[in-house]
Amino acid sequence: MADGPEKARPRVVILGAGFAGLTAAKKLAGGPADVTLIDRQNYHLFQPLLYQVATATLSPADIAVPIRSILRGESNIEVLLDRVTEVNREERRVKLSSGKEVAYDWLIVATGARHAYFGHDEWEEAAPGLKEIDEATEIRRRILLAFERAEMEADPEKRKALMTFVVVGGGPTGVEMAGAIAELAKKALAADFRHIDPSGARVVLIEAGPRILTAFPEKLAEAARKGLERMGVDVELERPVTLCDRGGIDTEKGRIEARTIVWAAGVEASPAAEWLGVESDKAGRIPVGECLTLKDDDRIFIAGDIASLRWKDDMNVPGIAPAAKQMGAYAAKAIRTRLAGGTPPPFRYRHNGNLATVGRKLAVIDFGWLHLKGRFAWFVWGFVHIFFLIGFRNRLFVILRWLWAYFTFRRGVRLITGPVDIA
Amino acid sequence: MADGPEKARPRVVILGAGFAGLTAAKKLAGGPADVTLIDRQNYHLFQPLLYQVATATLSPADIAVPIRSILRGESNIEVLLDRVTEVNREERRVKLSSGKEVAYDWLIVATGARHAYFGHDEWEEAAPGLKEIDEATEIRRRILLAFERAEMEADPEKRKALMTFVVVGGGPTGVEMAGAIAELAKKALAADFRHIDPSGARVVLIEAGPRILTAFPEKLAEAARKGLERMGVDVELERPVTLCDRGGIDTEKGRIEARTIVWAAGVEASPAAEWLGVESDKAGRIPVGECLTLKDDDRIFIAGDIASLRWKDDMNVPGIAPAAKQMGAYAAKAIRTRLAGGTPPPFRYRHNGNLATVGRKLAVIDFGWLHLKGRFAWFVWGFVHIFFLIGFRNRLFVILRWLWAYFTFRRGVRLITGPVDIA
Repeated sequence: MADGPEKARPRVVILGAGFAGLTAAKKLAGGPADVTLIDRQNYHLFQPLLYQVATATLSPADIAVPIRSILRGESNIEVLLDRVTEVNREERRVKLSSGKEVAYDWLIVATGARHAYFGHDEWEEAAPGLKEIDEATEIRRRILLAFERAEMEADPEKRKALMTFVVVGGGPTGVEMAGAIAELAKKALAADFRHIDPSGARVVLIEAGPRILTAFPEKLAEAARKGLERMGVDVELERPVTLCDRGGIDTEKGRIEARTIVWAAGVEASPAAEWLGVESDKAGRIPVGECLTLKDDDRIFIAGDIASLRWKDDMNVPGIAPAAKQMGAYAAKAIRTRLAGGTPPPFRYRHNGNLATVGRKLAVIDFGWLHLKGRFAWFVWGFVHIFFLIGFRNRLFVILRWLWAYFTFRRGVRLITGPVDIA
Repeated sequence: MADGPEKARPRVVILGAGFAGLTAAKKLAGGPADVTLIDRQNYHLFQPLLYQVATATLSPADIAVPIRSILRGESNIEVLLDRVTEVNREERRVKLSSGKEVAYDWLIVATGARHAYFGHDEWEEAAPGLKEIDEATEIRRRILLAFERAEMEADPEKRKALMTFVVVGGGPTGVEMAGAIAELAKKALAADFRHIDPSGARVVLIEAGPRILTAFPEKLAEAARKGLERMGVDVELERPVTLCDRGGIDTEKGRIEARTIVWAAGVEASPAAEWLGVESDKAGRIPVGECLTLKDDDRIFIAGDIASLRWKDDMNVPGIAPAAKQMGAYAAKAIRTRLAGGTPPPFRYRHNGNLATVGRKLAVIDFGWLHLKGRFAWFVWGFVHIFFLIGFRNRLFVILRWLWAYFTFRRGVRLITGPVDIA
């Protein structure tokens, strides 16, 4: 790697400290390269539990850990809180919104995905998605505020709209959100109001396709659907949404008046393809070669939800945390191999399974060789999530909050933060 | 109380669910009157620990409990999330910003106080105060963001301003804030950065008067001042602030360049005097008679920080939690006595003492008959705060977070939420 006596150690720049970027950084710790990890947040977020922040079971700090704190002992890694504005591939430099520029020898792009509105970004205000902490606390605010307003509302029509909650999208996030809102209304809030009965709230899960949880086998998806319906959730299939506004949603089968809408349909990658000047697929993901690098630049790795890579049959590697971690680890290892003069083997995705939970008693798990559903699956689900959380402290607090919620049916984090607009 | 066959149970309306209002509601639970408790937040906030939210030790949910949840079992109490816009004393009605009106037979006004800028409200943007959760998370955001920006800043002058933290006001809140910021910088963040040394941060406590902690005996205040200085806090006495802006503060002895300023000087009561059409003292507090009622209306009680009542010598009843609780309890009891046809005795404030803490090893406590300082006082301080927290759950979580911070020197809640403006 030595171009001359002045040449410093090679520098790996990682964009994004999600599952892919953070895993890559950890695998480069103590290695022969200096690492700069750049994220626009100061924390790594454990997104799989974000819906529990939105439904008042967990606090933001329970599932978010300062990136610096995770990497404090790694002296070859620096962490920058900043936003990327441009990547200059000729000069191998990343430009940041602070004006700072960082030169790289190797670049790992792991900037992830957001929810997609299929060309209707104007729906976002009415139907926020669930990818970031501020979105989760906003959704929590809207859900709790809807009950508060319903308590004061005399008009039965308006009251009904206030107590109707629509979740759009029947993937794991949508299923988990719908179940958690139903539990919140029917258990946690049941005794707290005088003029309304929160257990009469209507929770609707809307899915455009013919079934929920398409990544799961039919039987498990069906068990989840039945579980949701036992909890009082209306599962509406084959009902594409044609409009979202602050009063409700329009579908091809008519309108649902609802003051609270949560968007859990579709994902769209971050604008990294634009920075890199490469083509992306229609979800904004960047196609990569078998070594996770750009087809025309083997110093740029793409990892996590933003990478588009064929896995098997007609399917891509899925946008889930284990896949992102594997890609991040692979990119780090490939760089180390190449720094040592070797040639890395191609990336192979190892699929461990799919998990989703429906309320406090039921989960569905597809390990491929084993299907689980019911209460035992729920324990496995909980165990897996605790296991993969970062840090003893977060594990302890999440376990305690779950025990609390499980045995008391109460939610500890029912705070309406941000502006309270009453009228 | 019966005016006729249609006459319902008498109604007590309580404005504000702080220490005074919530205590009053609890004391009226199960009683002969119906109670409407109105607050513009959905939670009761344990303000004495708010500075620990601002300095990343506690999560907002650790010190805030939904008001409905506290009073869920009390069927004669309803809770409204709303803002008061007007009180019509002739018709005995409270108007709310939702348009709703609530009639009262008895009114307890307990709307509390905010920090005062002594006629310079334009300083608030530069120097936020610490009375509400959103303010605490904003201050946390500014403190943590200052270190992040310093890490990226090449100019030594700018870096110095980013790493200078000014706390204005030498009362208990200011002392606690200054100590907690110093600990955060010198212990929790010490190993997390590569280009700056957080332990080199400068924390300045500015006080206009000749000493800090004026409510405490001279000796204890001196111990606190020495404790702060041992922790590396510059305590600047007799230094009135003449201007605050986003770049620093001006004082009569010169300017201090600082990008983070916390306001902990002076309090000002909420605008309740205006709603009631009564005179207030210069801090906006409402003078009350010996039964805590308005001088010309014995159906309106004023309780907590907003009440102005002589205690002893030249001093008013202090604006602290125990005083607010005593007033709230008194108002409730006085109403019950009068509903039963009796005459309540005058309110007597019972002063139990003053407490303040300086970091994780020192507190000062003035029980009047006993002065405590040092580590034992710190344990007493912690015990008292845990004891008065509401709910087993919050006690458990606060104890665990304290143990965590105490033994690891780390802070669990170092999240920068809200917009991250880098430049």
